[in-house]
Amino acid sequence: MTFDALWAELEPIGRSAQTGGYRRYAYNDAELHCREWFTSTAVARGFDVETDRNGNLWAWWLPPSVDRNAKACVVGSHLDSVPDGGAFDGPLGVVSSFAALDALIARGFEPTRPVALAAFADEEGARFGIACAGSRLMTGQLNADKARSLVGRDGTTMAEAMTSAGIDAAQIGPDRERLERISEYVELHIEQGRALIERDASVGVAESIWPHGRYRFTFDGVADHAGATRMQDRHDPMITYALVALAAQARAIELDSRATFGRVEIDPNATNAIASQVRAWLDARAHDRQTLDALVDAIREQAEASAEGNDTSVEFTVESETELVSFDVSLRDRVARAVAADGGGAPILATAAGHDAGILATAGIATAMLFVRNPTGISHSPAEHAETEDAHSGVAALTRVIEDLVS
Amino acid sequence: MTFDALWAELEPIGRSAQTGGYRRYAYNDAELHCREWFTSTAVARGFDVETDRNGNLWAWWLPPSVDRNAKACVVGSHLDSVPDGGAFDGPLGVVSSFAALDALIARGFEPTRPVALAAFADEEGARFGIACAGSRLMTGQLNADKARSLVGRDGTTMAEAMTSAGIDAAQIGPDRERLERISEYVELHIEQGRALIERDASVGVAESIWPHGRYRFTFDGVADHAGATRMQDRHDPMITYALVALAAQARAIELDSRATFGRVEIDPNATNAIASQVRAWLDARAHDRQTLDALVDAIREQAEASAEGNDTSVEFTVESETELVSFDVSLRDRVARAVAADGGGAPILATAAGHDAGILATAGIATAMLFVRNPTGISHSPAEHAETEDAHSGVAALTRVIEDLVS
Repeated sequence: MTFDALWAELEPIGRSAQTGGYRRYAYNDAELHCREWFTSTAVARGFDVETDRNGNLWAWWLPPSVDRNAKACVVGSHLDSVPDGGAFDGPLGVVSSFAALDALIARGFEPTRPVALAAFADEEGARFGIACAGSRLMTGQLNADKARSLVGRDGTTMAEAMTSAGIDAAQIGPDRERLERISEYVELHIEQGRALIERDASVGVAESIWPHGRYRFTFDGVADHAGATRMQDRHDPMITYALVALAAQARAIELDSRATFGRVEIDPNATNAIASQVRAWLDARAHDRQTLDALVDAIREQAEASAEGNDTSVEFTVESETELVSFDVSLRDRVARAVAADGGGAPILATAAGHDAGILATAGIATAMLFVRNPTGISHSPAEHAETEDAHSGVAALTRVIEDLVS
Repeated sequence: MTFDALWAELEPIGRSAQTGGYRRYAYNDAELHCREWFTSTAVARGFDVETDRNGNLWAWWLPPSVDRNAKACVVGSHLDSVPDGGAFDGPLGVVSSFAALDALIARGFEPTRPVALAAFADEEGARFGIACAGSRLMTGQLNADKARSLVGRDGTTMAEAMTSAGIDAAQIGPDRERLERISEYVELHIEQGRALIERDASVGVAESIWPHGRYRFTFDGVADHAGATRMQDRHDPMITYALVALAAQARAIELDSRATFGRVEIDPNATNAIASQVRAWLDARAHDRQTLDALVDAIREQAEASAEGNDTSVEFTVESETELVSFDVSLRDRVARAVAADGGGAPILATAAGHDAGILATAGIATAMLFVRNPTGISHSPAEHAETEDAHSGVAALTRVIEDLVS
C-alpha cells in the first residue's frame, strides 16, 4: 500500500473533533485501537506479529531469502501521543516503515537478513510519567518494580493497565535475548524544530540527542481563605512556583538550553482558597550533561531560596534523566549516504527531543534516525505537520536505507 | 440536644480520612447527605421543613405562641464546603442554630414571631464557580438562565445537578414572597482571620463585608515540544501567568487588599509540552470598591503587558462582583448588646469573606453576623477550628440574640 493509503487508515483513530489532537496514551482505548491497526496491517502482509514482554509490538518480515540466524534490521517508531498531541509524532515513522517495506516487496526485493518493524510502547510517557517506558524496560533502563507501581493520572498503575491489555506485568523487564537479535535500529520521525526549514531540506539525519531530565518540584504552603488572609500572613506555594517558573526561563536562556514547566497540579485548586500545594514538573535539556546539571542546579537553588523567602517549602525529585546520546557514526554516515542518494543533501542534525532510538543507542545498539521536515516547526501539538511530498521523500529515503542495510 | 451531640452527628459526613477535609459541593453525595441530616434533625423537633425553589433549606419553628402573620427571624448558614475545606465554615452556624433553638425550647421559651433556620445552597460556589448561588438566585442577584447553564468541573450543569437532587430547575429565580416574610437574618460563622485572637474574645459581631470579585484570565499561547523548541521561539502562556501571579501579589500588598490565584487549569498539562492555554482565576477583595477597581485594573493591565511582551494573548472575564456590604447598624448594635450580655465584650469586625448574609443585606434585609474565634486563624482548610468552649459561647450568644429578637 502507499503511504497515503496507510496514513488514511491510522490518522482518524482517536482524533478529537474539537481540538484536532490525540490522546493516545499507553494502553488506553485509542492506543489499543492503533495497536490493532498495526497488527492487522502486519498480518495482511504475512509478517509475524508479536507483543514482547514489555508491551512493544514487533512485525517480522522473514521471506525465504532471509538468513534467520542473522541479526535483524529494525525500523519503526511509536503509536502513542502526548495529551492533545499531533498526528505525526510516532505514527509517521510506523506508517513510513510499512510503506517502505511495501515498496521493497512490490519490487521483489529479497532481504538477506530479518527485518522487523517495531512500535515501542509508551514512548511519550503521557500516562505514567516516564518517557520511552517500553524501550527502557527492554534495555533495563527502567526497573520493572518501579514501572509496575507507576500510577497514572487516572489512578491506574502501569501493571493494571498492562494486565487489562493482556500483557503479563509480572514478566516485564530486561530482554537481552531480543536485544541480541538486533543489528541496528533506524527510526524515522517528524522533525521537532526548524533546522530542516532553515536548510531547505525535506529529510535529515540525526547526530545526537541532548541529555534530558524530568524533575518534580512539590511546593508546600498552607491552604487558607483567599479573602480573609492578609497578604503578609500567607504561605502561598503558588507564588513560590511563579518565581521558579520565571527563574527557569531566565536560566535556560542564559545557558542556551531548555527549561519548561508544562504540567502543574494544584491542591485544592479553588478560586477562594490559597493553595496548600503546587506540584510542578520541570522538563530540562541541554547540549551536554554539564550544562544540564548547571541548569537544574540553578533552578533548584532558586526554588529553595524562593520557598524560604516566601514562607513555604519545596521538595525536589528527579523523575528521570537521560544522558547525551551520540548515534553510531558509521551507521549514521551510511544512512546519510542512502538518504542523499536521490541527489538531495542529508543534513546532520542534533535534536533536543528524546526517542526510543536514544534508549537503544545507550544500550549499545547501532542506531540512526531520519527526520522529516515539519513546516510549522511545532510539535507535541495538533499544529505539527508534514507535507505529503516530504512524507514521500521520507519513505523513499527509508526504503533506500533498508535496501542498503539488508542487501 | 447539645451543640456537642449535634456536631458529632454532622462532622463525619463526607470527611476525607486522608486529608481531614471535606468536599461537600452543591448537590453532590456528601452535601445531599448533610441535607438529609438537616431535614431529619428539623423534623425530630417538629419544625416544618421545606426546600425552596432555589434549593435553600428552611426549617420553621412555629409553636402556638407565634403570630404566623408576623415576619420571621431567620438564623442559619450553609452546609457546603470548598475543596478540602474544614468542618466549621457553614456547619458551625447551622449546628449552633439548632443548638440555640433546642436551648430555647428546653427552657420553655415562647417566641412571638416565626423563627426559621435556613441552610443556603451552594454558598462556596465550589462546584459551579458562583459563590452564594442559592441566596443570589432567591434575591435576583444571579440570573436563572445563567445559573442553569453553569457547568461544573465534572461537566454537569447546575440545572442537571438540581434536577438530580429533585429540584425543578425550571422554577429557580427571584423569590420575593419568601424575602417579604423575613424580618431579619442572623448568621453565625467561624471567624476567617485573627481579629478575635488579637482581641482575646470568643465571639464578635460583623460590621461590613469587603467588596469582592472573581475574574478569569485565559492566557493563550502555542503548544510545542518542551525540548525541541528554543526558548526564544516560544509562546508559553505559563510564563505570562507567572508574571501576572507575582504582579497580583505586589499590587495587593501596595493597596492593603487581597489578590489570590488559587485555581489554575492548564492545557494540555503535559511535562514535555509547552502549554497551549493557562486559565487562572483571580479572587480579589479590598476595603472599598474604588480600591478593588484599582487593584483589578492594575492586574489586568499587567496581564495585557505581560502577554504582549511574551508573545501570547490574554482574555479577561468578570465572573462575579459583590459590592461592599454594610450590615444594618441598629440590628448590629442590638446583636452586639445581646452577645455582650454575658459580661464579655463583643468586638465589631470588618470581614473580607463573602456570606449569604451579605447577599440578603444587599437585597434590603436587616442582617447581622456573629463570628466565633478560630484559634488557627486559618479557614478554607482542614486546619480551620473552633474550641468547644468558644463554640458554646457562640451558641449562648446566638440564643440570647434570638430570644431578644422574638420575645
